[in-house]
Amino acid sequence: MKKEALYLKIAAQMENQIKAGTLSPGDKLPSLRSLQQLHQVGLNTIKQAYLTLEGRSLIHGLSRSGYFVSHTSLRKLPLPSSSLPSYNEQEQISDDLISKVFSNLQNKEIRQFSLGVPDKTLLPTEKLHKSLITLARRTDLHDASMSYEDVQGSANLRRSVAKWSMLWDGKLKADDLITTSGAMNAIYNCLMAVTKPGDTVAIESPIYFGTIQIIKALGLKAIEIPTHPLTGIHLDALQKVLHKIDVCCFVTNFSNPLGSSMPEAHKKELVAMLTQHNIPLIEDDIYGNLAFDNSRPKPCKAFDEAGIVMWCSSVSKTLASGYRIGWVAPGRYKSQVLRQKLLQTIAMPSLHQEVVAEFMEHGRYDHHLRLLRKKLQANFFHYEDVIHNYFPEGTKISRPQGGFMLWVELDKNCDSSKLYDLAIRQKIGFAPGRMFTQHNRYNNCLRLNFALEWNEGLRFDLQRLGNLIRTQ
Amino acid sequence: MKKEALYLKIAAQMENQIKAGTLSPGDKLPSLRSLQQLHQVGLNTIKQAYLTLEGRSLIHGLSRSGYFVSHTSLRKLPLPSSSLPSYNEQEQISDDLISKVFSNLQNKEIRQFSLGVPDKTLLPTEKLHKSLITLARRTDLHDASMSYEDVQGSANLRRSVAKWSMLWDGKLKADDLITTSGAMNAIYNCLMAVTKPGDTVAIESPIYFGTIQIIKALGLKAIEIPTHPLTGIHLDALQKVLHKIDVCCFVTNFSNPLGSSMPEAHKKELVAMLTQHNIPLIEDDIYGNLAFDNSRPKPCKAFDEAGIVMWCSSVSKTLASGYRIGWVAPGRYKSQVLRQKLLQTIAMPSLHQEVVAEFMEHGRYDHHLRLLRKKLQANFFHYEDVIHNYFPEGTKISRPQGGFMLWVELDKNCDSSKLYDLAIRQKIGFAPGRMFTQHNRYNNCLRLNFALEWNEGLRFDLQRLGNLIRTQ
Repeated sequence: MKKEALYLKIAAQMENQIKAGTLSPGDKLPSLRSLQQLHQVGLNTIKQAYLTLEGRSLIHGLSRSGYFVSHTSLRKLPLPSSSLPSYNEQEQISDDLISKVFSNLQNKEIRQFSLGVPDKTLLPTEKLHKSLITLARRTDLHDASMSYEDVQGSANLRRSVAKWSMLWDGKLKADDLITTSGAMNAIYNCLMAVTKPGDTVAIESPIYFGTIQIIKALGLKAIEIPTHPLTGIHLDALQKVLHKIDVCCFVTNFSNPLGSSMPEAHKKELVAMLTQHNIPLIEDDIYGNLAFDNSRPKPCKAFDEAGIVMWCSSVSKTLASGYRIGWVAPGRYKSQVLRQKLLQTIAMPSLHQEVVAEFMEHGRYDHHLRLLRKKLQANFFHYEDVIHNYFPEGTKISRPQGGFMLWVELDKNCDSSKLYDLAIRQKIGFAPGRMFTQHNRYNNCLRLNFALEWNEGLRFDLQRLGNLIRTQ
Repeated sequence: MKKEALYLKIAAQMENQIKAGTLSPGDKLPSLRSLQQLHQVGLNTIKQAYLTLEGRSLIHGLSRSGYFVSHTSLRKLPLPSSSLPSYNEQEQISDDLISKVFSNLQNKEIRQFSLGVPDKTLLPTEKLHKSLITLARRTDLHDASMSYEDVQGSANLRRSVAKWSMLWDGKLKADDLITTSGAMNAIYNCLMAVTKPGDTVAIESPIYFGTIQIIKALGLKAIEIPTHPLTGIHLDALQKVLHKIDVCCFVTNFSNPLGSSMPEAHKKELVAMLTQHNIPLIEDDIYGNLAFDNSRPKPCKAFDEAGIVMWCSSVSKTLASGYRIGWVAPGRYKSQVLRQKLLQTIAMPSLHQEVVAEFMEHGRYDHHLRLLRKKLQANFFHYEDVIHNYFPEGTKISRPQGGFMLWVELDKNCDSSKLYDLAIRQKIGFAPGRMFTQHNRYNNCLRLNFALEWNEGLRFDLQRLGNLIRTQ
């Protein structure tokens, strides 16, 4: 433990320098080697100190350029509260509210802070289109589309996804994967595969509304687990209700709407806990490739030796949501999930799967992700600035390290569902907090998408939203 | 009733001439006008007489060429028995058998009489491909695919399907339709929309195995209704169990596997009966465009004033099963079905929907269907010949007037599941009867696909199958 104490000591020293203003936002930090020489310690000790500071959002690494003091290091906006859903509350999905928000999504005149996908301007539309045209011409591919594709899905796409899993220490083979119509469809099939009506699913709170809707539509019960805005679900809270749980469904990296990410140690503990109780985990990892710092956080699947983790992902948040391309590595539940896909749709059309496979193969996906992450991080800082300057004092915001969802907690007397109606009249849309729970909660919260193109118009609309909230 | 008696009299006269051999198979019949002059009656009376004979498979009309004595008029092969499933039998889907048959479907060395889709040689592959290439180039379509399509599906496809519904007196508008990933997916969504676990679904017996599998996977019960091989379900049998039924799911035209079609009067009666009891009907009409005589039999949806019929169809049996394009007109259950689609997949990719829409628009689909139907009818006659000459005496076969599924009933001691294993060793695949029921029935039956390219190789394989059965 001596070594651990050392890196924490070094980290604490640097934190003091930042807080004291000796190091300012944007300042480049000393190189690892120079610090190593200064402190006369191993290189790993310095690395750990920097990672600790990075985990606290005080500094951030830029590949090949070293480490810098983060703009967020002097953050004045506090974190939202840990969620504490009560298990005895009445359950009621806010279907009407969700429908209302959906009905406004196609309106081009409205600023869509409520979107669940990145704006087109951030996507490699032309490159994908070229690839689509080339592959559409191929006679062999088209001939094959005259009859059903293999139920498991495009072998090329499965191979590409398997290769990419190496980035997070995944040992997936193409045969471990099943392609699906987006990640929602993967989650649906997983739930169908491992539950029967009346079963209980543990979910985060707050949670993406689509997941609760599926759970209810399948005749299942949901238990919302309290979460911390940085580290996701509270494992001790989960442990307490584990005897009631038949399956878990969590977003482990850069969750929606909270932006939380489970630390690696939590992931390991979660997998161990669920393995011990033989409870399957449906892991929704659609944002895992969107870490601002270009790391690729491991999903729980990386620690899954028993095959209980059903790892689901897609390209809907990174490439083209309209292609409807997702996948699942269902571990020991493969045959059951495959059967659900067969019954529901028999197979999928191949063409868009091939386009995505090709895009993933030749470095293009990697290149695109690097650009996208940079823009997302820059946007997050812009949002933070505007919220700090234009939203009422006391506003709390989440601190995502990736993805593009920002969770905003307003004064407890502010009703964001009413605010929504006022904002829509001013052509501003967002997602009210009440959408993200089955209880009567998060009424003073809202979710903002920051995967939009940053420009003066966007800044102005965000300022207007802040002013509107101030008048409430 | 005098007029009706007259046409029946004329029909009876001609039937006698055919049975006596005065008119031989292939002979052209007198024109409508010449017969009208002969009998001194109205043109409609002669038309009705011909339609009556056609309904009995004694004659068939070829467009612009007049009527001919059918090869089937001297048919020596009797019809299969009416099915009489007992409601007290044990229920057990033959999952292992179904999996075994599926596992052999991709083997190119096996003659695939077991296929559920037309062979590629019968499909307009090149024309579809050209259309796909053209539409893949369109920037506006591709730009739209960066985000989700409207949940209801491609407006162009829905408009085209609505237009085509005029052929069967449908008054559908584009807004009445929802596109789906094939008709199976439509049926799945319809069942999800109108049932809860434990509900009971009335189905035909024998029935397409995929439908029973969906029903069981959703925690529903199935009651198999007895059917007549020509006219489909026995309405009186349905009436007797109607109090137990929550929803019906029937293939009303050229059913799979029996090839039966409900007469129009039966359809009207069925819709009236279900409307009275407020029971939804999921109508699977995937073969409706494949009538040998180029008619387009009306589905039950044509008689549905209360909106209880959920009309499902696709292009999987006529164009390209791998495109996964189907649809449903869910009547009064539209919002529920739309919600199911949203939860399952959010939306569908647009491109293949646009290709199908374009193909339906400009007369190409119509042209293709005319060619396909002619080939299917010719193939049916070929199969009938070979079965008559090479299968054991006592073999019974169905008499589809459209579609491409032939139901063969062998001697009651013949076990078609055992026969399947022997046939596979000889590189011949078919679908054993046991696949098409949840009871221990149809063990002496098998289904043959006749949407294969007729040639000497195919004839030889069919003969070999006959010889194999003879040796049993």
